[in-house]
Amino acid sequence: MDFRTDLAIERREMLSEADKNGVKAQEFCDGEVKFTKIIITNSCGEKAIGKPIGTYITAEIPSLMIRAVDNEDIINAIAEQIKSLLPKSGIILVVGLGNDEITPDAVGPYSVSMILATRHIAKEELSGLGLGELRSVACMSPDVLGKTGIEAAESILGMVKSVNPSAVIVIDALAARKVSRLGNTVQMSDTGIVPGSGVGNSRSAINKELLGVPVISIGVPTVVDAVTLVNDFTHCEIKEKNNMIVTPREIDLVVQRSSEIIALSINRALQPHLSVEEILMLVGN
Amino acid sequence: MDFRTDLAIERREMLSEADKNGVKAQEFCDGEVKFTKIIITNSCGEKAIGKPIGTYITAEIPSLMIRAVDNEDIINAIAEQIKSLLPKSGIILVVGLGNDEITPDAVGPYSVSMILATRHIAKEELSGLGLGELRSVACMSPDVLGKTGIEAAESILGMVKSVNPSAVIVIDALAARKVSRLGNTVQMSDTGIVPGSGVGNSRSAINKELLGVPVISIGVPTVVDAVTLVNDFTHCEIKEKNNMIVTPREIDLVVQRSSEIIALSINRALQPHLSVEEILMLVGN
Amino acid sequence: MDFRTDLAIERREMLSEADKNGVKAQEFCDGEVKFTKIIITNSCGEKAIGKPIGTYITAEIPSLMIRAVDNEDIINAIAEQIKSLLPKSGIILVVGLGNDEITPDAVGPYSVSMILATRHIAKEELSGLGLGELRSVACMSPDVLGKTGIEAAESILGMVKSVNPSAVIVIDALAARKVSRLGNTVQMSDTGIVPGSGVGNSRSAINKELLGVPVISIGVPTVVDAVTLVNDFTHCEIKEKNNMIVTPREIDLVVQRSSEIIALSINRALQPHLSVEEILMLVGN
Amino acid sequence: MDFRTDLAIERREMLSEADKNGVKAQEFCDGEVKFTKIIITNSCGEKAIGKPIGTYITAEIPSLMIRAVDNEDIINAIAEQIKSLLPKSGIILVVGLGNDEITPDAVGPYSVSMILATRHIAKEELSGLGLGELRSVACMSPDVLGKTGIEAAESILGMVKSVNPSAVIVIDALAARKVSRLGNTVQMSDTGIVPGSGVGNSRSAINKELLGVPVISIGVPTVVDAVTLVNDFTHCEIKEKNNMIVTPREIDLVVQRSSEIIALSINRALQPHLSVEEILMLVGN
Repeated sequence: MDFRTDLAIERREMLSEADKNGVKAQEFCDGEVKFTKIIITNSCGEKAIGKPIGTYITAEIPSLMIRAVDNEDIINAIAEQIKSLLPKSGIILVVGLGNDEITPDAVGPYSVSMILATRHIAKEELSGLGLGELRSVACMSPDVLGKTGIEAAESILGMVKSVNPSAVIVIDALAARKVSRLGNTVQMSDTGIVPGSGVGNSRSAINKELLGVPVISIGVPTVVDAVTLVNDFTHCEIKEKNNMIVTPREIDLVVQRSSEIIALSINRALQPHLSVEEILMLVGN
Repeated sequence: MDFRTDLAIERREMLSEADKNGVKAQEFCDGEVKFTKIIITNSCGEKAIGKPIGTYITAEIPSLMIRAVDNEDIINAIAEQIKSLLPKSGIILVVGLGNDEITPDAVGPYSVSMILATRHIAKEELSGLGLGELRSVACMSPDVLGKTGIEAAESILGMVKSVNPSAVIVIDALAARKVSRLGNTVQMSDTGIVPGSGVGNSRSAINKELLGVPVISIGVPTVVDAVTLVNDFTHCEIKEKNNMIVTPREIDLVVQRSSEIIALSINRALQPHLSVEEILMLVGN
Repeated sequence: MDFRTDLAIERREMLSEADKNGVKAQEFCDGEVKFTKIIITNSCGEKAIGKPIGTYITAEIPSLMIRAVDNEDIINAIAEQIKSLLPKSGIILVVGLGNDEITPDAVGPYSVSMILATRHIAKEELSGLGLGELRSVACMSPDVLGKTGIEAAESILGMVKSVNPSAVIVIDALAARKVSRLGNTVQMSDTGIVPGSGVGNSRSAINKELLGVPVISIGVPTVVDAVTLVNDFTHCEIKEKNNMIVTPREIDLVVQRSSEIIALSINRALQPHLSVEEILMLVGN
Repeated sequence: MDFRTDLAIERREMLSEADKNGVKAQEFCDGEVKFTKIIITNSCGEKAIGKPIGTYITAEIPSLMIRAVDNEDIINAIAEQIKSLLPKSGIILVVGLGNDEITPDAVGPYSVSMILATRHIAKEELSGLGLGELRSVACMSPDVLGKTGIEAAESILGMVKSVNPSAVIVIDALAARKVSRLGNTVQMSDTGIVPGSGVGNSRSAINKELLGVPVISIGVPTVVDAVTLVNDFTHCEIKEKNNMIVTPREIDLVVQRSSEIIALSINRALQPHLSVEEILMLVGN
């Protein structure tokens, strides 16, 4: 039974109590945002959830269809959780996975276009701008295998060797099981990512084992597999609709807004001395 | 029971034999394209199908995901049917309905951007270009009510008064009932259109009654309502997923390619002296 | 000697004192914005400036390359002048001239995409949103003759008949004589506009004579004709570089930002009860 | 005296006969394309031209504003010269330099989006598609330092280590001295490139010394520096217009079309068994 969800929170909901051994969960709120932290502690949990040992934090917010600048509280709450997953110092490499020409797959590249890159700015220049010290950040969008002939994992590995970061953040669009999750869920984890894992065209894992540094993944579900939706209701497997997705009609706007919120939350986590307002000015949006 | 399809061919499939009084159907092929012509002849048929008296021609083609320039036969076959619905002379106004910022709703504006407008070109200029006589064509994309404050029907009516065409062609994205229809179906009719009729936010009809001239509508289904899909399998009504659609993952490409084929077919129907190649050169694509 | 500028302020600078009969000028500041109001009072002035009798207000601001939301003072100052040119009541039709596929010509369509259209919103709905009374606003982007086969003047005339506004605002990209004007100048006038007048492909005038209601034009210079620039330095006529423009390297960003400021200023002039923040939320940016 | 041109052909035109020692030139035609091959043979030539020792081939074609598919002869002629600069075997990495959000700087990324990547396609898959053997090609667009915090040279070096190509092709937008060069010139060389060298914001060189494999550069001039243009006519240095460019009004279309021609020429040079038609189908355009 393949439910094709990338969300740990949804996979846990499908487990019987007996199978929850090795899968701890904890809920808490920060303002309007409800967080669920799922910790997979052993190989039983790993097998039950179908995801590697580690921490998965799900943020449920009223709606991602907000202008980021109007919701500093939400951004600060998500930024706080991202910060908890990151090393305290060192360069951070932010990577946007996916294809910017296919709207439901464009969250990664869109987000990265709003990340404040600072690695190239000299200290003197920063103090000239009255900005004090900023954390060193670099970013990249490796695009997809079909267009480049290069696995995202290979591109990132090459860049990690050049940039030598203390951690990598990867951003990707996810698949959910429930339509009601679209447009209001953000998942963060410290276990890296298998790009496209939720939708069948699985690629090489991008994780600490490959890159040698911690890999934080951040994603938002933008689609439900049509197969999954129907399965939910009919409990029978449908094969032939394989490439169909369920998505909000305003998919373009959902992807745009979700990307803004992810990018701002990461920027806030990385540059705690800058306000949302200052970040927006510096990234030119 | 609302199946939310804009396709006459799908509505007819749902009828019992008894209800097919007033609904004639005829199938024929032209090369690789299979056509079904449905003629609603009286008010019984009108009620059974839920669409006005008139002719509905559905083209089923192997795939809309082709580059138009590689499929002159398909374009010529569709062009032939469009021609059969058009008056022989006079200016034609081509209208692209929908919102170019929402991908599944962008077929109209995208298509119109590839229509060869000729109304402003003087005869001398045409013969200077070695083009002989071209039919006079004007086009417009009125955008959507939420962005303009003006009903598409109002905009078109204003333009019809200025341009004085012998017929109007309206292009729109449609909703289908069956996922298998997405990306391979074109519907043409001589009854005009109610924009958004398949998806619940119904607007003023754009038809001969309003505009005073024949209104030919051309559309391709780009989405299935998520409600419809689930209904298909569960036979129960689901209300809360109202704004979700089912669509191919490559929706951006499907919309782009479908628009090219519609635009080229219309151009071929309107300018039979020009080859597909010449049309592409003149519209700059 | 053709200096190809659309700016009244630049044309006036070229006049000898003797020729300034019939051309009154007055300067004033509002915060950081310097305004020059030029009033052409008779046919002598009309001939000297090469523009029709009426009022031309030029705003010079430190830079248009700012995020609009960070400059409420500038927006309010420009909005105040726009308001002075508009009738106190009645529907306003806002029109974006130009071609959204040619960046230096896209200010009109980009601006209109950020205008808050309200004509279709019922009073009850507004009070439901807690918005009180809003002025009725409609908008359109007629696109260019080469793509539609229809003169912008014709499209607008058709729409004026449908919508029956008390005034029309037309927005267009302009040509300047001086490179130093690019990216920091806005011109407003009550005399309508001849689209493309600064750049040689002149179209029908869009003015009160044609439309029967006042026509307020608002524009920003995005280019200098290359011919003009060279003429400035060499005082000789060069013919062959006719289609070349001088523009900032970041033309895409200049056009985007200028459009935001124009749109926000118009929105503020039309809906004085809404703050910049509320407007941004309502237009979804 | 800085004329800010990236074109060897223009730099040579400025030399006196005495300075042409070490700078050989040879002209030839292939159909409608006129080629000039300039070979810098020693350090005198290097100093005179201001470019490193190596071969610079300039193609002058009637116009780049053509649809590529209509000009197979031009594409084949350029492809032939590219082939002469490439090693006969091994993987080729194609790199698009520049910023896809600034139109005059977008030739690199636009071109790369139309390069046929094949490195990831297994031999069996190719023969299944009836395609025989294809040369292994990978590609990337490293974006600009200001957005990523990473020098293009660093990104490419990282990727060269991962992909291990036998040569790198870099594509970039260039600056010309003469306006008449815009839209009809392609320059190819075997000496690599200094990104942004023509326009003042010089970056690390991308060449064989850095990457360890031959670097072929291919570029089209999309702009003339405004300073240069005026200098041409006035012979005096103007400093303050530093960031202004001269460019065709239809810059968006020039960049789009130039990119198509470069991409198709490279694809033809790399995959001589595929026709232009087959390439277009495979890259999905």
